[in-house]
Amino acid sequence: MTECEKAYVAGFLDGDGCLLAQIVKSPNYKFGFRIRVSIIFYQKTKRHWFILWLKKKFQRGSVRKRKDGVSEYTITGYTPVREVLILLRPYIFMKKPLVALVLKIIDQVQTVSTQEGFLEVCENVDKTAQFTDSKKRKNTAQVVQDH
Amino acid sequence: MTECEKAYVAGFLDGDGCLLAQIVKSPNYKFGFRIRVSIIFYQKTKRHWFILWLKKKFQRGSVRKRKDGVSEYTITGYTPVREVLILLRPYIFMKKPLVALVLKIIDQVQTVSTQEGFLEVCENVDKTAQFTDSKKRKNTAQVVQDH
Repeated sequence: MTECEKAYVAGFLDGDGCLLAQIVKSPNYKFGFRIRVSIIFYQKTKRHWFILWLKKKFQRGSVRKRKDGVSEYTITGYTPVREVLILLRPYIFMKKPLVALVLKIIDQVQTVSTQEGFLEVCENVDKTAQFTDSKKRKNTAQVVQDH
Repeated sequence: MTECEKAYVAGFLDGDGCLLAQIVKSPNYKFGFRIRVSIIFYQKTKRHWFILWLKKKFQRGSVRKRKDGVSEYTITGYTPVREVLILLRPYIFMKKPLVALVLKIIDQVQTVSTQEGFLEVCENVDKTAQFTDSKKRKNTAQVVQDH
């Protein structure tokens, strides 16, 4: 990707994209929960070509056409999300604090071994809410602690 | 503005911005209608600083805080919109056909003198609808013709 393409996509992500960290109930995981990180791009399916262009640029993630006429391109997983964020980070402006926090979460969660450590990661996930205009979160650090 | 800033703003405009041409009823104008062109950027008012940053970059247009918690930055008028589009055009990707059409409308409308010529501009305004996901248009070329 050229510098201008990275800056363009960073602007697009700041405008209409979504960068997300979530606590997901996962009984098979050590702490009963896991952390999911995702980057999501949206576009009306009539401009599905744009979503395909993005996917071609990043060579990661998956595309789906929703029934409501919106196409979604989702990149999930610690390594892919980390790689894409590192690529775009110099150009991201509005979501810069959120990018820093998600990168921190990715680093933390991959080395965490204790319950206290995992709770600390969950607290950082809670902190992302202030940047994402998220309306409701079912699983918070409190829910994990209670569990 | 640096090249990367232009690419970033082009991406932001493609993602969440709005480029608009409208037929507006204006009894004091020669043909009873005029053409309004606008570029609008939106952002939650809690990130009003971002809207102010954009305005500082373009040195045009006006900012307002809506009552629903959204800040709007609107650039309107043939000359300001044309100047901003010329600046961003090399970096705009998804809205490229719309940018070309709006620039054409701006050129046409400033030299038009006949009713037929004005109707032709109005037909081009109608054509922008296919790119803007606009739900309803009150004034179309047909309305102008009937008038």
